[in-house]
Amino acid sequence: MFEQIITNVRNNVPLVHAITNYVTVNDCANIILASGGSPIMADDINEVTDITAISSALVLNMGTLNERTALSMLAAGKKANQCGLPVVFDPVGAGASAFRKKLAYQLLEEIQFSVIKGNISEIKFLAAGEGKTAGVDACEGDKVTEDNLKGVADFAKEFSKRTGSVIAITGAIDLVADGNLAYAVRNGHIMMSRITGTGCMLAAVTGSYVGANPGSILKASAAAVCGMGLCGELAYKKLSQLHGGTGTYRMLLIDEMSRLNEQMLEEGGKYECF
Amino acid sequence: MFEQIITNVRNNVPLVHAITNYVTVNDCANIILASGGSPIMADDINEVTDITAISSALVLNMGTLNERTALSMLAAGKKANQCGLPVVFDPVGAGASAFRKKLAYQLLEEIQFSVIKGNISEIKFLAAGEGKTAGVDACEGDKVTEDNLKGVADFAKEFSKRTGSVIAITGAIDLVADGNLAYAVRNGHIMMSRITGTGCMLAAVTGSYVGANPGSILKASAAAVCGMGLCGELAYKKLSQLHGGTGTYRMLLIDEMSRLNEQMLEEGGKYECF
Amino acid sequence: MFEQIITNVRNNVPLVHAITNYVTVNDCANIILASGGSPIMADDINEVTDITAISSALVLNMGTLNERTALSMLAAGKKANQCGLPVVFDPVGAGASAFRKKLAYQLLEEIQFSVIKGNISEIKFLAAGEGKTAGVDACEGDKVTEDNLKGVADFAKEFSKRTGSVIAITGAIDLVADGNLAYAVRNGHIMMSRITGTGCMLAAVTGSYVGANPGSILKASAAAVCGMGLCGELAYKKLSQLHGGTGTYRMLLIDEMSRLNEQMLEEGGKYECF
Repeated sequence: MFEQIITNVRNNVPLVHAITNYVTVNDCANIILASGGSPIMADDINEVTDITAISSALVLNMGTLNERTALSMLAAGKKANQCGLPVVFDPVGAGASAFRKKLAYQLLEEIQFSVIKGNISEIKFLAAGEGKTAGVDACEGDKVTEDNLKGVADFAKEFSKRTGSVIAITGAIDLVADGNLAYAVRNGHIMMSRITGTGCMLAAVTGSYVGANPGSILKASAAAVCGMGLCGELAYKKLSQLHGGTGTYRMLLIDEMSRLNEQMLEEGGKYECF
Repeated sequence: MFEQIITNVRNNVPLVHAITNYVTVNDCANIILASGGSPIMADDINEVTDITAISSALVLNMGTLNERTALSMLAAGKKANQCGLPVVFDPVGAGASAFRKKLAYQLLEEIQFSVIKGNISEIKFLAAGEGKTAGVDACEGDKVTEDNLKGVADFAKEFSKRTGSVIAITGAIDLVADGNLAYAVRNGHIMMSRITGTGCMLAAVTGSYVGANPGSILKASAAAVCGMGLCGELAYKKLSQLHGGTGTYRMLLIDEMSRLNEQMLEEGGKYECF
Repeated sequence: MFEQIITNVRNNVPLVHAITNYVTVNDCANIILASGGSPIMADDINEVTDITAISSALVLNMGTLNERTALSMLAAGKKANQCGLPVVFDPVGAGASAFRKKLAYQLLEEIQFSVIKGNISEIKFLAAGEGKTAGVDACEGDKVTEDNLKGVADFAKEFSKRTGSVIAITGAIDLVADGNLAYAVRNGHIMMSRITGTGCMLAAVTGSYVGANPGSILKASAAAVCGMGLCGELAYKKLSQLHGGTGTYRMLLIDEMSRLNEQMLEEGGKYECF
């Protein structure tokens, strides 16, 4: 069902401009390359619009936000909208401080995002200012389960209608929705939460996928979520053989992304639509 | 002797706010996770106090210091003191420039640190402005040996009394002391000096350990030093089997931290108190 | 032919001051260590001259450039010139934005570089403002091949004469030239382009090599290019045995650098001079 998505990435090698945090930026660059794209990180207000203008997608990630990069995100986002470029938003820790909250709302107001990707707490916070976020992880009470799955899907569809963005909510079960259709994705592995940056890496890969598939934002986003989760599973399988820890796992995750192809995604993807 | 320290970390999952350098920040985040904590890196003056307020510990690391983050460190440190949060100080390259020297002294003056962790040159510099630092490594003439061990321990105890902080001096032999008691730790491996960031990672792990054990700062700090050194030994053992180099070693170090438990620390810890 | 170059690095442990991008900075620090040097990253205008003054070499890398670090690069570069320190310039994405272009030309004007290292698009851009750069990779039409090798070597020699810098042009075939002599280096592996930072790492290693061999800038630069390429080959050989992906490859590359010695370089180096 995701036919052509990965092939388009590997053939087109989309240039992905990411304004992202310095904690996981190297992993983001390496996983964009592994996914088939080409990363460029530039965050100075004097050049972000130039860089966005030559790119195929823009990723805005609020981790380690500062006053300087906040302005750069706004400028790059507007430029991307002007150029008709897909823009992915990762509102890392959106509710963790007044500063992030303010920028998150301002970005939502001034930029038309193609995809908004976050954990349930971050997305709820964006949608209504009512989520709680403890640091950068989702709160226990917010989590998506089999029981509340349909309800969260409806919420995601609703938020998608309001924003005009595909909404990707990550967790044990991931949800990716536009106003009409929701994918529930059951790929992934708990080990992914024991290393830093899997969320940022997913946003980066999503940038790569939508950059090469600008006409299929929902499908490309769902493929990215599915693919990242599948890589997490495959990496864990290999990790078990190697008796490795979290350091090794981080490396294997990027390994798997560098090998991922359409057939693997077709066979290993676990999702349903409704 | 370190009973409960690691268990408390794994049970409480302390949120560790780190304002740290961009060279080793990813390793710091990953090793905080590996140790059982949850990392959050935020350095903008507009949000550091919000982030500190929801955290269990604060780590201030002076590597790649700049004017902007210097102010953020001061603000976050004061907030942590106000909230009664443990604060770990890693005065990376304290004597390498007038700028770092000035901030180091200002931080010492204005923030009450729970733990000050550095190599002997950095700590001597803080204590008396008399150490020499060539870059970020300790100077040969300063090194802690079996011969000067007791003398350095007395110096550490004295400096601890003056500052009210636990003093952790890293080297071939590590010393961790408060005003009354010193641990001499003989864990560790020379290979740890061949990769960047082992010092920063130790400060990060210390943040995680004291964050979950705020009533046992000395013991938690000594456990962190011991544990980090033990991981360095175990990683080297595995490295030899794999015939790997320094790239592999860095990964294995985080692997070992992700596996470390109380029993391993009890069996592998090499320390004496005096 | 590169006798003593690596030995001098391992014996002298040159302190390498790098003002470089936050995407690949950790890899740069680790590969400087692996090569036998000691890295120090400092980019604040208040301390860069202090840090440069105690260093053996300075590396300026324009990736993730900003207004603040641009000024620091200029100040550090001038200080290095004043102290007679070798300075390596890596004009990452020089033509990608007006901002980078302006700084690149200003640096060329105000700093005397020992080595300028870039892909053919970046170097052409510096030389004449006529190269095209799409992001941070070389453009297809610019690439160095067996057919245009002599022509590019003449261009490099000419540019070296104008700038007084050794010119290192990286690609499938690398060229390293001063005004009189050019090395064509055929080491390296295509896999190196599938991870981020191999170019930055080469600049970092070059800093380490010229820092310990300030009287042999051309030879040290060629040895660095040769050595880095050889590590890329050896890492690929090991990768094939491990059935790894790009994550593993990045680690193995640093592993190989940590093992590289004169004999390996003598036996594995593939280059000719003309």
